[in-house]
Amino acid sequence: MIDEQELQRILRDFANNRDWEQFHSPRNLVSALNVEAGELLELFQWESANHVVDVNDLETRHKIEDEIADVFIYLLRIADKLDVSLEGVAIAKMKKNADKYPIEKSKGKAVKYTEL
Amino acid sequence: MIDEQELQRILRDFANNRDWEQFHSPRNLVSALNVEAGELLELFQWESANHVVDVNDLETRHKIEDEIADVFIYLLRIADKLDVSLEGVAIAKMKKNADKYPIEKSKGKAVKYTEL
Amino acid sequence: MIDEQELQRILRDFANNRDWEQFHSPRNLVSALNVEAGELLELFQWESANHVVDVNDLETRHKIEDEIADVFIYLLRIADKLDVSLEGVAIAKMKKNADKYPIEKSKGKAVKYTEL
Amino acid sequence: MIDEQELQRILRDFANNRDWEQFHSPRNLVSALNVEAGELLELFQWESANHVVDVNDLETRHKIEDEIADVFIYLLRIADKLDVSLEGVAIAKMKKNADKYPIEKSKGKAVKYTEL
Repeated sequence: MIDEQELQRILRDFANNRDWEQFHSPRNLVSALNVEAGELLELFQWESANHVVDVNDLETRHKIEDEIADVFIYLLRIADKLDVSLEGVAIAKMKKNADKYPIEKSKGKAVKYTEL
Repeated sequence: MIDEQELQRILRDFANNRDWEQFHSPRNLVSALNVEAGELLELFQWESANHVVDVNDLETRHKIEDEIADVFIYLLRIADKLDVSLEGVAIAKMKKNADKYPIEKSKGKAVKYTEL
Repeated sequence: MIDEQELQRILRDFANNRDWEQFHSPRNLVSALNVEAGELLELFQWESANHVVDVNDLETRHKIEDEIADVFIYLLRIADKLDVSLEGVAIAKMKKNADKYPIEKSKGKAVKYTEL
Repeated sequence: MIDEQELQRILRDFANNRDWEQFHSPRNLVSALNVEAGELLELFQWESANHVVDVNDLETRHKIEDEIADVFIYLLRIADKLDVSLEGVAIAKMKKNADKYPIEKSKGKAVKYTEL
């Protein structure tokens, strides 16, 4: 169980104590989310048939966890700012996806969840 | 409270039922996370002094929630695949940030959480 | 005038001399392009009404130029790998955009070039 | 040869005629660049050992060219706005990279151009 509201309270206080709320518009937080997602992608960018990232290597794992944390932290802040429930919107989207991708028709086809 | 494990179980079943696990390598899920973060950014890309996105407009709000959901869904899948606790890594990172950005020194300065 | 082919020849030799062609699949180069675009975004992520990035500050300018260079370098490599003319596809797209966004209807509206 | 200045003149006129200059701050153009880079990545996101994107398939190729065009168009606009020569910064960066990655030491190692 993730205590979303407690995490958001800590992050809100953290920003408030540093006078950072002025920088935390939804747009800026979304930009930061993209930057951090890019840093996570960087760790995997050169994967090839002969060169697969070893996610169990301790140093690599630590870097991956660090970037996942950054993405999640900004996502929590965005959700807090916009008063969005992460679980709520995820469940709504999963229902939509279940309709959009009927099991039989989608089997083994590389689609994206949001593909039209 | 977010039931991370239950959401991950549903997403895992969703992928399994459609034979999508073959596409859900960590790297591919991280790529998808970036694509979805970009779609969220798209909604805010033309903001200016005279043109601020109205996050309370119902249609806009629906689009934003949809993209937030996609980002969260892929983040949950990545965490599941890599056996990472989202709450755990977020708390570890928040502690690191508290050390890195002492309140007095950081006040009112636009920094990023992960800035060196 | 940009000597696209000469730049691409240098970059190709650079990769060949280091045995990096094995990492430079179209997909990997596109990933790297995204990572570099994210690093460019990072420089602007906290802009606000009261905090605008001074693009004439020498240190900032140097960082911006560095990231623009990275984005362009990967774009040149992608175009080389896929045998795409950057100028050719840009002109084709600009014609499409001229049809899609008639002057009178588009005046002063925040749209994106590729909006449907 | 790419006539950078002529392309930039056309894009500038295009924006001016539609009153879009108000939206084309460096930051907004950089955001748009990220969005388009993400759309290019989307075309490759599900690649796997068994599922490689066929870049010679005509429909796929058309989509790829379209997204490459968007990335290049925004890069040209950014360079125009900031008075940066794309060729100039690319050559400067390539010299830096040649120093940073000596041929013998870099052979066959997956690094990124900008890695420290």
